[in-house]
Amino acid sequence: MHFSFQIVSGAHSGPRRGRLSLGHGVVETPVFVPVGTLGAVKACSSEDLLSCGVQMVLANTYHLYLRPGHEIIRRLGGLNAFMNWHRPILTDSGGFQIYSLSSLRRVSEEGVLFRSHLDGSEHFLTPEKVMEIQDALDADIVMVLDECIGFPAARSDAEQSMERTLRWASRCRDVEPGERRALFGIVQGGVYADLRARCAEALCRIGFEGYGIGGLGVGESKETMLSMVEASVAGLPADAPRYLMGIGEPADLVEAVARGIDMFDCVVPTRNARNGSLFTACGVLHIKNTRYASDSDPVDAECECLACRNYSRAYLRHLFLSRELSVYRLISIHNIFFYQKLMERMREAISRGTFEEFRKRFYERWHGDARQGEEGPFGGTQRCDAACEALNISMDEEG
Amino acid sequence: MHFSFQIVSGAHSGPRRGRLSLGHGVVETPVFVPVGTLGAVKACSSEDLLSCGVQMVLANTYHLYLRPGHEIIRRLGGLNAFMNWHRPILTDSGGFQIYSLSSLRRVSEEGVLFRSHLDGSEHFLTPEKVMEIQDALDADIVMVLDECIGFPAARSDAEQSMERTLRWASRCRDVEPGERRALFGIVQGGVYADLRARCAEALCRIGFEGYGIGGLGVGESKETMLSMVEASVAGLPADAPRYLMGIGEPADLVEAVARGIDMFDCVVPTRNARNGSLFTACGVLHIKNTRYASDSDPVDAECECLACRNYSRAYLRHLFLSRELSVYRLISIHNIFFYQKLMERMREAISRGTFEEFRKRFYERWHGDARQGEEGPFGGTQRCDAACEALNISMDEEG
Repeated sequence: MHFSFQIVSGAHSGPRRGRLSLGHGVVETPVFVPVGTLGAVKACSSEDLLSCGVQMVLANTYHLYLRPGHEIIRRLGGLNAFMNWHRPILTDSGGFQIYSLSSLRRVSEEGVLFRSHLDGSEHFLTPEKVMEIQDALDADIVMVLDECIGFPAARSDAEQSMERTLRWASRCRDVEPGERRALFGIVQGGVYADLRARCAEALCRIGFEGYGIGGLGVGESKETMLSMVEASVAGLPADAPRYLMGIGEPADLVEAVARGIDMFDCVVPTRNARNGSLFTACGVLHIKNTRYASDSDPVDAECECLACRNYSRAYLRHLFLSRELSVYRLISIHNIFFYQKLMERMREAISRGTFEEFRKRFYERWHGDARQGEEGPFGGTQRCDAACEALNISMDEEG
Repeated sequence: MHFSFQIVSGAHSGPRRGRLSLGHGVVETPVFVPVGTLGAVKACSSEDLLSCGVQMVLANTYHLYLRPGHEIIRRLGGLNAFMNWHRPILTDSGGFQIYSLSSLRRVSEEGVLFRSHLDGSEHFLTPEKVMEIQDALDADIVMVLDECIGFPAARSDAEQSMERTLRWASRCRDVEPGERRALFGIVQGGVYADLRARCAEALCRIGFEGYGIGGLGVGESKETMLSMVEASVAGLPADAPRYLMGIGEPADLVEAVARGIDMFDCVVPTRNARNGSLFTACGVLHIKNTRYASDSDPVDAECECLACRNYSRAYLRHLFLSRELSVYRLISIHNIFFYQKLMERMREAISRGTFEEFRKRFYERWHGDARQGEEGPFGGTQRCDAACEALNISMDEEG
C-alpha cells in the first residue's frame, strides 16, 4: 500500500507537523483539502488549484455516483485522470450527503435507502457498495460509510448510531480496499465526549490507516465542537493522521490544529467566495460593499494570488455585482490561496516551535471572526446566505 | 495620435493583411476582437485572453455607462487599467445596444432617449455625450454613435436613418476624440447597396481613421450580408481599416476577409460556448451529446488551447451537464482560441498568396456550417437557443 504517515514535529495532543505519503505524492500536514464535489472545485480548474499550492483534493462519492456514475470514471482511468489532477485525492463515503441532500432516507443495519436529490431515483448503499464505488473512483484515501445524525440528538440515538457506524466501519475494513488506497475510519458519537472516546478506541481496535472525526459543524457551538475534537483525539493513536471532516472557518482550523488535527476539508473558502466574502489576514472583506466602488487596491495587499496580483477591489466588485462568471473563479482562487497560506504558516510555526505565538498573532489581526459575531473592519463576519441561493448554477450541492 | 494602418499584403477589394499601430500596441489584421461586454470577456480573465493570443478586446459603452459608470472607470485610470488588459481596446458607441436592449427608445435629431434594461432609468445620449463617455473609458479605437434600424426596413426609413447617422458621425468628428484615440465612422444603409455606397463615400469626405460596417447580421440572408459588405467596401478608401461589426460565424469571417474586411467582433465564440457548441476545424461539436459520455479524447486533437491540452470531452460534458462554473471558462477559451487560430491562418495564407487554397480547404473540412443548415459530423449546426437563457448569470447582455 502506498501509505505512510510520519510525524515531523509536535506532540500527541498538541499541534503537530507531519508528512503523509500517498500513491500520488507527499502531503505536508496539517493540510486543508478543498472540496471538489463533482470532480471539480467549484469555479476552478485543476491548474488553478496547483497555482494555489493545493496538495490534495476531496471529491464526493455521493455526487459522482449519481453523476456521471462511478463506472464511467473507472473506464476513464479513475478520478485523477478524469480531473487531470495528479496529486492525491480523498473521497468521502457519501454518508453526510445522504443525510443532508437526499430525501426518503431509510437506514437499516444492511445499509441506507435514499432518493437522489437530482431525479428522485431510489438507491440502496451498503458499506460494501460504498467501497466498490470508491474503488472505481480510485482515490488515494477512502472513507468508511458512516451514519450521520442531526443536532441535537438524544444520547441514546447518538449511541445507537455510533455503534452502527462502528459495525459498518468493520464491514468496510473487511473489503479489500485496493492496494493503492488507505482506508480511514470515522469517529461519531454526537456531542457526547464519552461516546466519542469509545468510538475512537473501538475504531483503533479495528485498525485504519487514519481517522476522520465526523458529525461536527452541524449546529453545535464552537466550544462543543472543540471539546468533541479533544475527546476524539484522546482516543486516537498518535501515529495516525486525524482528519476533522467538513470544518471550517479560519479560526476553527487554528484551534483544531492546536488540538492535534492533521487534515481538514470544507466548502467555506469556495462557498463564501461565491457569496462575495473574501478572507484576508485582517478578517472578511465583503466585495459587494459600496466602499470598494472606486478602490484600486487589491483585495489583500499581502496576498500573492492571481486575483490580488492582477485585479482591484473595484473591478472584482463590478464583476460580482454584474454576476460575471469570471469573478467566481478569481475570488474562489483568492480564498483557496488564503487557506493554503494559513496552513503553510501553521506548519512553519509548528516546525519552529512557535505555534502559540502564531495563534496569538492570528487573533490580534483577525477582526472578522465569525465565532465572536464581531463586526470587523471590512463590515462584519461572513455568512452563507440567500445570495448564494440566487446563483443557481450548481452551488447548493457543494460538499 | 497613436494610430497608423499599413497594408502589408493584398489588394483593395480582396483579402489583405495589415498592421494597425495603436496606443497599446500593434494589431495584425485581419483580426477577430472578442467582446468584453462589461469590461470582461464572459467567463474569462484577461490572462486567459493573452493565452489565446487575443490582440484587442471590445468593450460595450452602453453597458459600462450604466454599470459601473464611465466616471468610475476614468477615476481608476481607464479601461486598460480597470481590466488589467494592456493591449489595445475598442469601444463601441452603444447605438446597437440602445436598439437591441433598452425599452422606450425615442430617436430625435439631437440624440436618443432610452430606458436602461437594468433598472428602467431614463437616459439621453447624444453623439457628443457618447464621445465623452468613450473618452472616460479611454480606448484606443472609439466608434461614432449610429442609429440602428430593424430588418426588414423600408428603403425610405433606411435612407433617413443613414442620413441621420452621417450627421451624427460629423458631430462626433467635431469633438476632439483625445490625442491617443482613433475614431471610426459607421456605414449604415440597411440592405440597399446604393445607400451603403453613398454612406461610405460621405463618411470618407468627413474623414475617419477607420470605418465600421454596421447594421448587418440582424436577420438578412448571408448572401445579402455579403453583398452589403461588398457595396460598403467599394466606397471605402483602400488605406483605412474596415471593421465588420458584430459578425460572425467562422465561414462569415472567411467570406468577409475574402472581400477585404480587416476587423471583426462577435459574441458567437463565447455565447455558443456557454450553449455547449464548440468549434473545431471539422465543424461544431455539441458537448452535451451522449456520445461523449466516456470519450477520453480532447474536444479537438489539433487544438492547443488550455481545455484541449488538459481535459477530455467526457470531463467537459460532465461539467457542462452539472452546470459547473469552471466549464464555461474552459470552453469559452477553446472557442476564442479557435477564432484566433482561424484569423492567424488567414493572415498567413494572405501573406503567402494562398488565400484561395485556404478558403477551399476550409470548406472541404467544415461540415457544420450553419449557413447551409447541414447536419455535421458532430450533430448539426450551432444554435444560441433556450439553453443559453437558462443560464441566468449575465448571459443575455453580451455584446
